[in-house]
Amino acid sequence: MTEKTLDVVGIGNAIVDVMTYVEEDFITKFGLNKGTMALVDEARVEQLYRAMGACAESSGGSVANTLAGIASFGGTAGFIGKVRDDAFGRVFSHDLRGAGVEFGTPPATDGLGTARSLIVVTPDAQRTMNTFLGVAAEIYSYDIDRELIARAKVLMLEGYLWDSLEARAGLNKAIKIAKESGTKVAFSLSDPFCVDRHRKDFLALVEGQLDIVFANEAEIMSLYEVKDFRSAVEKVRGRCEIAAITRSEKGSVVVTGDNEYAVPAEKIPEIVDSTGAGDLYASGFLYGLTHGMEPAACAALGSKAAGSIIQHLGARPLKPLKNLL
Amino acid sequence: MTEKTLDVVGIGNAIVDVMTYVEEDFITKFGLNKGTMALVDEARVEQLYRAMGACAESSGGSVANTLAGIASFGGTAGFIGKVRDDAFGRVFSHDLRGAGVEFGTPPATDGLGTARSLIVVTPDAQRTMNTFLGVAAEIYSYDIDRELIARAKVLMLEGYLWDSLEARAGLNKAIKIAKESGTKVAFSLSDPFCVDRHRKDFLALVEGQLDIVFANEAEIMSLYEVKDFRSAVEKVRGRCEIAAITRSEKGSVVVTGDNEYAVPAEKIPEIVDSTGAGDLYASGFLYGLTHGMEPAACAALGSKAAGSIIQHLGARPLKPLKNLL
Repeated sequence: MTEKTLDVVGIGNAIVDVMTYVEEDFITKFGLNKGTMALVDEARVEQLYRAMGACAESSGGSVANTLAGIASFGGTAGFIGKVRDDAFGRVFSHDLRGAGVEFGTPPATDGLGTARSLIVVTPDAQRTMNTFLGVAAEIYSYDIDRELIARAKVLMLEGYLWDSLEARAGLNKAIKIAKESGTKVAFSLSDPFCVDRHRKDFLALVEGQLDIVFANEAEIMSLYEVKDFRSAVEKVRGRCEIAAITRSEKGSVVVTGDNEYAVPAEKIPEIVDSTGAGDLYASGFLYGLTHGMEPAACAALGSKAAGSIIQHLGARPLKPLKNLL
Repeated sequence: MTEKTLDVVGIGNAIVDVMTYVEEDFITKFGLNKGTMALVDEARVEQLYRAMGACAESSGGSVANTLAGIASFGGTAGFIGKVRDDAFGRVFSHDLRGAGVEFGTPPATDGLGTARSLIVVTPDAQRTMNTFLGVAAEIYSYDIDRELIARAKVLMLEGYLWDSLEARAGLNKAIKIAKESGTKVAFSLSDPFCVDRHRKDFLALVEGQLDIVFANEAEIMSLYEVKDFRSAVEKVRGRCEIAAITRSEKGSVVVTGDNEYAVPAEKIPEIVDSTGAGDLYASGFLYGLTHGMEPAACAALGSKAAGSIIQHLGARPLKPLKNLL
């Protein structure tokens, strides 16, 4: 077996976030679903961008955020994802490598531009995302780096990738490599609407392919089409080794085959922007898991990382998370 | 005389800020002068960028920040400055217009790219800037919009513009238009090293051309080559209508022909990033001045705006400053 020299390798959408604060009426005016991610075309992204006022740009993408968080804890991480050779692609690549994450997927030299996600943060600190996937969706089988996956203790995937037909063949290849290499497979359900779009595939993944699943309450309830949290917990129990379910200010619940751990959220003075909370919870959890911690301790570290990220605008750590250890 | 439909029109470098936190040793390793701005070439900007780790991008530029702040107070503002028709140029234009500032200078379609300023913030919250001016330096006489300047109560200029030989002819034209139109001329000394580069010109401006001068302690002491603050105050007194001198946590001193007002700084819980403090002080001051406030009240509003901006990363207001009124 390949030596495990990486804690986590991730495959995800390579996205630059374009963020601003808006008033509540922005949500209603443009018919947005608060707290969720919508896929939009270039015309819609331009329409919303024009309406958004002054913005701040920084690198995003759910799995990429998680990996940047793991590196910030002092862990080792690698990323597979697609940017274009344009200004935003250079920003994304610089930021991920600058965070200490290995990233070698060659940028596309033609076709669509680097993905952008317009993120508006309302006064209640909730974030609503409108994403133009661009070239990020074009992860092909040949981009799946066998050696990188085999070197990692955990392969992390995001449900958002299922929105790209092109990417799915590559993802199945990645899961197969992980199984052959003794690499555990972790997966985030990403978004309740995303779950809705791909419920059949996600159910099959949770049943047979995944070791670790990350979800929030809305996502796990959407997966099993149930109306209360406890029913969802009973449904997921025993389907995979670990289900880590986040519940915002109620903390998280970790469900293993035999046990269940309820872990409180970090108490923080003020939530500024919830963007990246779930991604960074996964950072803390997976850093813990790949460093021999028990599930409840992993969840506590996840809460700390999530608590840290929601105190500023943006989804990447601004100061080293290893200070939280 | 043209009707005064704008509070402030500004001419400045159109810059996108690329920011990150660094440890203290970054400053020594690259031989930087903490708290100041250095002009660098493209090779140096690339070298520093590679060393910077994950960054956040947002629009900057001293005068542009001041104008965004004035609009955020509910005032009216216009900008003259040069971007390239590239990704960062589009970001800059979008953000300034999104902030509510009139900006019609046509982007350059060839030559150098949009200006970038690499800003590193040390644990003491001080910011150190390395700026590649790019196309921002190419403000020509024909870019100086006579009607825009004539419509404004105040013309705001930044000392940094003197670093561009091309820009100076345009600036003299702008000052001339202001004098003919009953538009007051305000000027920021920008940076102690900038003052050092252009002392003779700046002294001539303060003597004969300016109505309002903004400076911090280091800049005004550099201008008059004196070693203590009081000597600098005595030197500037009576040279122009108002000199507003900021002193970090000691607040600011406003010197008019007959009077002197010492105004305390805002008490704030934690300084996160000092970028934009001086620019936003000017926002509050000029908003006050163009809305009939007395000098001390203008300075107090400046302190509030500065106190607000240094509590988050970046030099543009994230939430409306009109809440401070």
